[in-house]
Amino acid sequence: MPHDATTLLPQNSFKAPFVSQDLFREAMSLLGAPVVLVTTDGPGGKQGLTVSAISSVSDTPPTVLVCLNRSNRSHQAFLKNGVIGISVLSPVHHELARVFASRSVEPDEKFAHGSWTLGETGSALLSDALVTLDCDIDAIHSAGTHDVLFCGVKSISTNTDAEHGLAWFSRDFHHLPVKLPVKRA
Amino acid sequence: MPHDATTLLPQNSFKAPFVSQDLFREAMSLLGAPVVLVTTDGPGGKQGLTVSAISSVSDTPPTVLVCLNRSNRSHQAFLKNGVIGISVLSPVHHELARVFASRSVEPDEKFAHGSWTLGETGSALLSDALVTLDCDIDAIHSAGTHDVLFCGVKSISTNTDAEHGLAWFSRDFHHLPVKLPVKRA
Repeated sequence: MPHDATTLLPQNSFKAPFVSQDLFREAMSLLGAPVVLVTTDGPGGKQGLTVSAISSVSDTPPTVLVCLNRSNRSHQAFLKNGVIGISVLSPVHHELARVFASRSVEPDEKFAHGSWTLGETGSALLSDALVTLDCDIDAIHSAGTHDVLFCGVKSISTNTDAEHGLAWFSRDFHHLPVKLPVKRA
Repeated sequence: MPHDATTLLPQNSFKAPFVSQDLFREAMSLLGAPVVLVTTDGPGGKQGLTVSAISSVSDTPPTVLVCLNRSNRSHQAFLKNGVIGISVLSPVHHELARVFASRSVEPDEKFAHGSWTLGETGSALLSDALVTLDCDIDAIHSAGTHDVLFCGVKSISTNTDAEHGLAWFSRDFHHLPVKLPVKRA
């Protein structure tokens, strides 16, 4: 199987009861997840939003994935710019997570909150994030309502002072202690 | 853009310093994640392993993704069987997580631990898991060393008695309280 391609498997014949959106969302609320801000800037405009659907994929080459709803108004900007900045949040960022999760707040107003630096890709990175990843978007796989962005990590910074990380679980924030020392990036 | 296809974006010209495996792994240790067992059975054989690289993707149709290392000896079984059972672990499952994470333990020996039921796909599901998802593997996207399996969720069960979920963060287990009541699946 080629390693950069998508394979569609044949449909299985097994039939199962209908899984409702509510049931699926309730189950997914019990899958712990990090809380990150994803940002982009370039010809498609500057955008940012809060995301929990993110996962490490491979360390060779360093790759993470982020799931974006295609109906989100920032979606096209990420695709046009081809770059993404990822800032992993810690417990001091509850309010920032809420601001960037709002669909009614304009990008300029969002970025007025928090302290930002610019990554080499042009994406904004949160100065006091637990971890920042500056990435190119290498590939996109669409599934249902979402696009999964495969992000090639070009640079990393780690905040060695942070004592806790932030998780989203059971529709609430939770604080997770960092085992020190964190190796300096 | 077609919604079942993969798009490869043109390479960006931006150059960045080399990101080492160590640096990437250190950063990823600070991305909180759930702990799940993934299992499969069928013509490719019965296999199971512990995974943290899992994310919700879309509720229409209900889809999750799981990242599997292609070098893992169980990898081909998942592809051949085309089905996957996902059991989300809770704090009573530390030992089970360790057993299924071992590369030296044979499948039969792994499944001697824990109490199991069979999903309609034929995959084993942990009886006292926080959540179980019985899935077809609908598509595969390869990235670096890993295959990302896109899993169509055919049925869900939720354990309404569990009071805590399990997270993996900073190379350790953490217990996250469930906000009750959990809706019955």
